[in-house]
Amino acid sequence: MFNTITYNVEESIATISLNRPDALNAFNEQMMHELIQAYKEADQSDAVRVVILTAQGRAFCAGMDLSSGDDVFASEESLEEFRDTGGRVSLEVYKVKKPVIAAVNGAAVGIGATMLLPTDIRIFSETSKVGFVFGKRGIGPEATSGYFLPRLVGMSKALEWVYTGRMIYPEELLSSGLANYVVEDAYEKAHSLAKEIIENTSPVSNSFTRQLFYKMWEADHPEDSHLIESKFLYWASREKDVKEGIASFKEKRHPNFPLTTSDLPDFFKES
Amino acid sequence: MFNTITYNVEESIATISLNRPDALNAFNEQMMHELIQAYKEADQSDAVRVVILTAQGRAFCAGMDLSSGDDVFASEESLEEFRDTGGRVSLEVYKVKKPVIAAVNGAAVGIGATMLLPTDIRIFSETSKVGFVFGKRGIGPEATSGYFLPRLVGMSKALEWVYTGRMIYPEELLSSGLANYVVEDAYEKAHSLAKEIIENTSPVSNSFTRQLFYKMWEADHPEDSHLIESKFLYWASREKDVKEGIASFKEKRHPNFPLTTSDLPDFFKES
Amino acid sequence: MFNTITYNVEESIATISLNRPDALNAFNEQMMHELIQAYKEADQSDAVRVVILTAQGRAFCAGMDLSSGDDVFASEESLEEFRDTGGRVSLEVYKVKKPVIAAVNGAAVGIGATMLLPTDIRIFSETSKVGFVFGKRGIGPEATSGYFLPRLVGMSKALEWVYTGRMIYPEELLSSGLANYVVEDAYEKAHSLAKEIIENTSPVSNSFTRQLFYKMWEADHPEDSHLIESKFLYWASREKDVKEGIASFKEKRHPNFPLTTSDLPDFFKES
Repeated sequence: MFNTITYNVEESIATISLNRPDALNAFNEQMMHELIQAYKEADQSDAVRVVILTAQGRAFCAGMDLSSGDDVFASEESLEEFRDTGGRVSLEVYKVKKPVIAAVNGAAVGIGATMLLPTDIRIFSETSKVGFVFGKRGIGPEATSGYFLPRLVGMSKALEWVYTGRMIYPEELLSSGLANYVVEDAYEKAHSLAKEIIENTSPVSNSFTRQLFYKMWEADHPEDSHLIESKFLYWASREKDVKEGIASFKEKRHPNFPLTTSDLPDFFKES
Repeated sequence: MFNTITYNVEESIATISLNRPDALNAFNEQMMHELIQAYKEADQSDAVRVVILTAQGRAFCAGMDLSSGDDVFASEESLEEFRDTGGRVSLEVYKVKKPVIAAVNGAAVGIGATMLLPTDIRIFSETSKVGFVFGKRGIGPEATSGYFLPRLVGMSKALEWVYTGRMIYPEELLSSGLANYVVEDAYEKAHSLAKEIIENTSPVSNSFTRQLFYKMWEADHPEDSHLIESKFLYWASREKDVKEGIASFKEKRHPNFPLTTSDLPDFFKES
Repeated sequence: MFNTITYNVEESIATISLNRPDALNAFNEQMMHELIQAYKEADQSDAVRVVILTAQGRAFCAGMDLSSGDDVFASEESLEEFRDTGGRVSLEVYKVKKPVIAAVNGAAVGIGATMLLPTDIRIFSETSKVGFVFGKRGIGPEATSGYFLPRLVGMSKALEWVYTGRMIYPEELLSSGLANYVVEDAYEKAHSLAKEIIENTSPVSNSFTRQLFYKMWEADHPEDSHLIESKFLYWASREKDVKEGIASFKEKRHPNFPLTTSDLPDFFKES
């Protein structure tokens, strides 16, 4: 079904894996289209509760595929129509209403680094290195990294990393907050975290949380959050998950929530 | 005067203490009303310069009181009228014009965790554990945590904590920035910090700083801050505190500021 | 040309150095005017690719010059006209379209601390100490620190530092994120970082990055970033720097970018 990635769903986990290992998973236009489609499917299927982004081979992604020459960033489109390919993927990740975990092995460079930013939780292997190398190539930060990078690692780190274009190694990935974890096997950790989420928390809760937290980054006042939280709480308190949540707590067992993501009303429509 | 909390003022410090130790200080509607009233009093009294939130017994707060059954989050009100009880407390904390310090001993779970977020400085004892367990119960983040949690600990930690609902222990409380300090005796540290504030800095300065910093989280440009800072500086430079501040600096002694919080004009009215 | 500072350009680095060492570089109105002029020159000259702010003598800056008495913060102007002198400098730093690095030796207190906040990368020597002492003097945070400080070190640290007015030492400068580095010789590190930037990345890229990242702190949605990033990418992909960037990458050598900062169109005009 896909050529540049693989997509499979098992145990309620959708795994999207970059699959051009011989090209160090270099990003091209087909990969953009396939990633967008894979994220859409993972978002829409109630069989999926958590999404993992990972890659095959020894590198996560070496950046934009430059094998076709130096006009790879140009396009036939006009200035008004042109949209950065990396950013189109990032906006799709942003819309997913499930937890998204990235498991990174080896080098993640250029778009290979910025495609990680709109995921929720980033796990790196001890062999990882990350580079925001855009300035070295005469271009600039893309894939909505202008929005995400300063928010995730602070302005001072974000600017230093992009101004120098240098590689960032595990210790700094962790201390900067870009990595939630650095471990020997990033995919194994991502998988066990996905299972922990699925065993413990309600799909509609997690969908609501993801939307709430990102939306509230832009709130003007805590009251904005209060009003939406109140609406969700009013709705959730009348649904079956809260009964199961409290029953399982009292019976000291894992919950088995009846609702699925598609049961969640859109609390963010007008806001 | 209060049943679910205690409130006392000593040495210019108002201490609000959750006081249902036999129920691990589980939160109920009466506690909401009493906390709101206590914060209002602390805010309005010039006898109070710093507020400490703490709790009696071996836990800080075990969350919402579920002893009355599984309809605790529901209410008789309509969707339009319903307002989350935790959020009503948080918005009151947000309005306080004095430093607010939380001293946490033992478990802080659910609303016990989220009620800490709008305080300014959080101090945990080495026995503390914190859990944002909403997804486990089939509900969602509340008490304006949608606004505060990603801002305080970063988006990646915030989402991981809520998606898993797992407990967070002192080392991670500190490294994430949720804790300013982890110490043996959280209340003792909070009290010494309160005294340090009272001995060294002007009440009107601190009131202005608290309002400025939270308001400027939402600024569109540093110039917004420049304009308000300039107004305050113009006003303050004509008042008695600056004379005392400079005199005490030159005389190498602690200042004794004549102004009280209620002397501060509202510089944020129209902004 | 300047009396309270020195300004010199060498190897494409503009070094602005506070130069009142006998007064511990205390800030006065002339220093404000000279700093504004120096930042303007560094911004406008294509001979400058990186700006370093530093100071001469054993302290970076001991704060506002109080030698003329306790009315130093007052002025002849009206409330409507009065603008904080520190904030006027900060807004000039904010506008610079080049990387700005601060190299701090010894004490940085009051305006000496807040003038560091709008720089991009802060490097401290092991002898540094920083104090946001405004509350001790009966005034409040200035120089747009209401905007910058909570964003750079988090709200909890920012409030604690200003409420207490206490000194902050290297370990905490680093763990809070205020310092990118603490080293023996701050200027030497700043200089080698400036050279690393100049040797590796495109001036127009760095100008774009600085403007993008600060502007996007205030974005309402990642799509805002996507649209501006797309416009820059469309433009840059047709310019000479991208050809040199890709050629130097393939030839494994340092790039030699033909474009200068003044070649960059204003992508932020209408946003």
